[in-house]
Amino acid sequence: MPTIFFYGPELDREKKKEMIKSFTEKASELTGIDKAAFVVYLRKSTHEDVGVGGTLLADKFKGSG
Amino acid sequence: MPTIFFYGPELDREKKKEMIKSFTEKASELTGIDKAAFVVYLRKSTHEDVGVGGTLLADKFKGSG
Amino acid sequence: MPTIFFYGPELDREKKKEMIKSFTEKASELTGIDKAAFVVYLRKSTHEDVGVGGTLLADKFKGSG
Amino acid sequence: MPTIFFYGPELDREKKKEMIKSFTEKASELTGIDKAAFVVYLRKSTHEDVGVGGTLLADKFKGSG
Amino acid sequence: MPTIFFYGPELDREKKKEMIKSFTEKASELTGIDKAAFVVYLRKSTHEDVGVGGTLLADKFKGSG
Amino acid sequence: MPTIFFYGPELDREKKKEMIKSFTEKASELTGIDKAAFVVYLRKSTHEDVGVGGTLLADKFKGSG
Repeated sequence: MPTIFFYGPELDREKKKEMIKSFTEKASELTGIDKAAFVVYLRKSTHEDVGVGGTLLADKFKGSG
Repeated sequence: MPTIFFYGPELDREKKKEMIKSFTEKASELTGIDKAAFVVYLRKSTHEDVGVGGTLLADKFKGSG
Repeated sequence: MPTIFFYGPELDREKKKEMIKSFTEKASELTGIDKAAFVVYLRKSTHEDVGVGGTLLADKFKGSG
Repeated sequence: MPTIFFYGPELDREKKKEMIKSFTEKASELTGIDKAAFVVYLRKSTHEDVGVGGTLLADKFKGSG
Repeated sequence: MPTIFFYGPELDREKKKEMIKSFTEKASELTGIDKAAFVVYLRKSTHEDVGVGGTLLADKFKGSG
Repeated sequence: MPTIFFYGPELDREKKKEMIKSFTEKASELTGIDKAAFVVYLRKSTHEDVGVGGTLLADKFKGSG
């Protein structure tokens, strides 16, 4: 039944798999709940739709990438 | 004022309408709050961004679809 | 794998059961996904922590209840 | 550490910047927490994936736009 | 229809009112959507249930408060 | 900037610390983003406010605990 949401950058398939596996195994170990009950959502967020410290990330990083 | 979020597969327009109608009517009936106050968000999630039991769904279903 | 969040008033046990059952059955029917895969979270919200139209609900309803 | 999620229509870049700045400054002022600690997520929602009062917005506004 | 979630410390009633009013007015102005359609949820989070940089805030601030 | 939400049972302090540390380190490694930018929210959910497969967990587990 536990559910995990990750809001962050898009990852490639191998990294998605590793994140889901790692989060689920650690959370299952700590809660004592079977791994089968865990759902992990990877919710993509880009520099165009998130602000940190009051500044849109797209502005913060422009010129630096 | 109540708000409902649905994280799941993309649905066609008729099914979206039916889900929103059904959730709202039942929740309005149970809370006693007017239907007009309810908002339902349908947040699409695909097999590429959700894991169950520690496995990315895209892997779980590959070969089966 | 689909997940539903309900943000609204606290309900008594019978109403919680009916909401969970109704949301799950309708969503299972519309998505074609087995009921066993659905998780519904009931997240309580009170008049002290929600605002509508720019006004805290606790203020909106004071004197009326 | 505080986090704000905005679910609503897509905005142009200037409006995104102003929303992030305004939310962060006001929340920093009210909580006494440094602006640098705030994250604001703008989560786009369209008339095709939100219902109000039991009706899909795409239906509510058809013909009017 | 837009919805805003604030995850952060508990605030006193006057600050809650000011946050809700400020977020709603700014978001209404930027989206062009009537204030009446906005819902703001204040979701309390404490130092016991949030981690920053890998450290539980309750540990980060112990001895400093 | 990435943010992680965990919806699940209450944990004791040591387990909270380990979950936050593990999620943050793995996510930092996979995204290449500094650990300092990660926030993890532990959102408690009980058997009284979550349903699985259409059944309130409080009913599912009664008599078994």
